[in-house]
Amino acid sequence: MSSGLEHILQQLRQFRDERDWAQFHNPKDLALALSIEAAELNEQFLWKLPEAANPNKVREELADVLLYAVQLADKYGWDIEQLMQEKIARNAEKYPISKAKGTATKYDEL
Amino acid sequence: MSSGLEHILQQLRQFRDERDWAQFHNPKDLALALSIEAAELNEQFLWKLPEAANPNKVREELADVLLYAVQLADKYGWDIEQLMQEKIARNAEKYPISKAKGTATKYDEL
Amino acid sequence: MSSGLEHILQQLRQFRDERDWAQFHNPKDLALALSIEAAELNEQFLWKLPEAANPNKVREELADVLLYAVQLADKYGWDIEQLMQEKIARNAEKYPISKAKGTATKYDEL
Amino acid sequence: MSSGLEHILQQLRQFRDERDWAQFHNPKDLALALSIEAAELNEQFLWKLPEAANPNKVREELADVLLYAVQLADKYGWDIEQLMQEKIARNAEKYPISKAKGTATKYDEL
Repeated sequence: MSSGLEHILQQLRQFRDERDWAQFHNPKDLALALSIEAAELNEQFLWKLPEAANPNKVREELADVLLYAVQLADKYGWDIEQLMQEKIARNAEKYPISKAKGTATKYDEL
Repeated sequence: MSSGLEHILQQLRQFRDERDWAQFHNPKDLALALSIEAAELNEQFLWKLPEAANPNKVREELADVLLYAVQLADKYGWDIEQLMQEKIARNAEKYPISKAKGTATKYDEL
Repeated sequence: MSSGLEHILQQLRQFRDERDWAQFHNPKDLALALSIEAAELNEQFLWKLPEAANPNKVREELADVLLYAVQLADKYGWDIEQLMQEKIARNAEKYPISKAKGTATKYDEL
Repeated sequence: MSSGLEHILQQLRQFRDERDWAQFHNPKDLALALSIEAAELNEQFLWKLPEAANPNKVREELADVLLYAVQLADKYGWDIEQLMQEKIARNAEKYPISKAKGTATKYDEL
């Protein structure tokens, strides 16, 4: 893990423990919190053209999503860079260039 | 940005461009894709006790969430470590230890 | 409640009980299931223009959302027509015509 | 459709038209709005035991989900009672009692 991510994790753990919040942070509720933040992120785009959201608000809601994502990964002891690397490799198998080029069709319908 | 994240971004941009997918990747749909992956993550916990999900599946769905999160950040030219750092600082203001300790109450009701 | 909705509820209760699923149907997981179906509904629109989804698939995913919504209401003993009526009245107060006309701004920013 | 639902729809159409909101109500954004309300519904259960949410707040958020669901159905000209009926029949095929009894396993893994 990068030293930047490691530092972020240390701060998040300290933040949680100073507030005695570990009792709430089971994996199910962390995932639920992440999806609620994802909805708040989507709300910035609601009723708008694809590029018309306020970037400052998008930035903040995206940060909330990421903070829960790294905390959920940390709960399982995972390195987020490593799990992203693995998924990129898997996606390359699921979406071969020859089939996926120029189409947004899902892999199981390609 | 860490060299690991920079490398992941380079791979994601190449992956997208080899498949001619930039046409689909507007911010609104990237945020929507992220929230759909967040729901697939939550599905791993559905009808189960908080700790009873299959870690392998959680890992994969969490990776999907993260991959869209870094792509959305990249769309705006943002460094995810920096935006997480900023949000941690903001959250410390919204949730002072003295008020937030031991309670899951939202900041606007503290 | 209309006789149609009452009949649907009777079928859903029987469906649940024949499968011994009441043990899973606590309010938290019913709400979670609803949001997962909502994401599957959204997936029909992903990477597409606003009107370009397949109506047959939209119909099916919307049905799933509604089935969990009526089951969650039933869990609390609520009549969905009544709770919709109440909310329409509340929304009329939150969004007065004079302020809300022609704008998608949220009520707390009007 | 029941006269109660028909009456609700008439009010929703009038509410929308008085505010000149039809311009925003394309199917994609209606589905997105529904999923954002679903997340607000889930937020009532976050960090809590399955039965510990505030019923008044659950009721209001569930109403919001339902109001968007009926508006999305109306956009396509669908009767929600009919689409629920059809889906119950389909689910009975996907989840035969003999296989599904007592297990929360998804139909494609039964």
